[in-house]
Amino acid sequence: MNASGMLESQRIRQEIRDGRHTGSSRGVAHGFVQCNLAILPKAYAFDFMLYCQRNQRACPVLEVTDPGDPVPHKLAPNADLRTDCARYAVFVDGARQDDVTNISHLWHDDLVSFLIGSGITFDGPLERAGVPTGKYRWVLRTDRPTEPAGPFRGDLIVTMRWLTPEQAITAVQVSARFPFNHGAPIHIGDPAGIGADLAHPLFGGAVPAMPAGLTAVFWACGVTPQSAAEQARLPLFIAHAPAHSFITDLPADRLMTG
Amino acid sequence: MNASGMLESQRIRQEIRDGRHTGSSRGVAHGFVQCNLAILPKAYAFDFMLYCQRNQRACPVLEVTDPGDPVPHKLAPNADLRTDCARYAVFVDGARQDDVTNISHLWHDDLVSFLIGSGITFDGPLERAGVPTGKYRWVLRTDRPTEPAGPFRGDLIVTMRWLTPEQAITAVQVSARFPFNHGAPIHIGDPAGIGADLAHPLFGGAVPAMPAGLTAVFWACGVTPQSAAEQARLPLFIAHAPAHSFITDLPADRLMTG
Repeated sequence: MNASGMLESQRIRQEIRDGRHTGSSRGVAHGFVQCNLAILPKAYAFDFMLYCQRNQRACPVLEVTDPGDPVPHKLAPNADLRTDCARYAVFVDGARQDDVTNISHLWHDDLVSFLIGSGITFDGPLERAGVPTGKYRWVLRTDRPTEPAGPFRGDLIVTMRWLTPEQAITAVQVSARFPFNHGAPIHIGDPAGIGADLAHPLFGGAVPAMPAGLTAVFWACGVTPQSAAEQARLPLFIAHAPAHSFITDLPADRLMTG
Repeated sequence: MNASGMLESQRIRQEIRDGRHTGSSRGVAHGFVQCNLAILPKAYAFDFMLYCQRNQRACPVLEVTDPGDPVPHKLAPNADLRTDCARYAVFVDGARQDDVTNISHLWHDDLVSFLIGSGITFDGPLERAGVPTGKYRWVLRTDRPTEPAGPFRGDLIVTMRWLTPEQAITAVQVSARFPFNHGAPIHIGDPAGIGADLAHPLFGGAVPAMPAGLTAVFWACGVTPQSAAEQARLPLFIAHAPAHSFITDLPADRLMTG
């Protein structure tokens, strides 16, 4: 807590709500779990939850709200999911609209919100164990199909990090301690082994030639369910805009024990 | 695999299907994950899954079938959930009917099956680590409310084991390696701390006075979601009968890595 008695996560959400914090959530409220948001009509909620269950490594569901309830009572009981992301991506019939900073005008009693773990969460524990997280990190499509559910399907999306062999071994151990937040890597070594598309990274910029002595390590990524929801062309689907995750009050280290 | 090229789990399920194995699943097909079954109409499936997500330690969902599909494609791809439990408990409007050995006559295209992890699964790893599992084990109600979802609610049900302090410490470590199957204990020591009802055990027989030098250790139990579904008084709810779990083809040790 800071001098005002608020958690740092609460303070940042208040700034976002008041329009004073408009940028990325990266590096903000360090130590608190950040979540990918997926908000969709209740008619699709069971299939989406099924999709997440069937692809649990990529889609660790940390909380699901009741229909129409904008408050994630477990992860951030005084938050409002309609106003507390700095930027939202809105999809209508699968077509991305202009980003918005508030979704109150789109809200209705039928919307269900999923808060899904983000790989950013174990950056802190990795750093403390001597594994750098600031560079050599990309989000890539693979050619590995996920297991479909209803209209939700698509290829697995991964986070790739380049590490020394020693760091890679440490990173396996540290991330395995977060089974409810992607857990251990799903692949190590040759990107072709999972058909990772190095030519078209989704985030992280162009992928250069790998420096000698490094190893690629791949984790299932929370962008996977968002991508599946986009492709399902729902009448309405709302997500956080990339790099503008929802900041919870849950200390990242708490994810170690479920 | 045995001489016929079948897994032991497959062989037992075939015997159950043919009516040659009619007894308990305890100690059968050792080393394969056994699941609690919960089968209910699709109209209730989202709320039930939400209940499981909100009470994940007690309700580790390992697979959910598509509506009307009696095959758990991931855990036992050649099984049929209508015939492959030795005994089923059937509830109509919350009232328990006579047990049956086959639910084909009750099946329809609207039923969704949940396979939920059972604490039996880490008995093998506990035994190998020197923790006895054959006696001093009960299933008890507590006074700790679970988090409700839709019509599903109720108090947490736990498995209590009595262990030496050394065994208790080992048991915490071993069970924590199964985060997708109840994981680490939720309580240790005084049963009153979670309001465990020693006077009315659900399974395991009467609870005697605890021998000196033992410690009570409590795990969230997969009977919790079944109890919540019973209390919801659904028009139809089908579960495995106690001690007649569904036997999957998944080796228990695989649950360690999600």
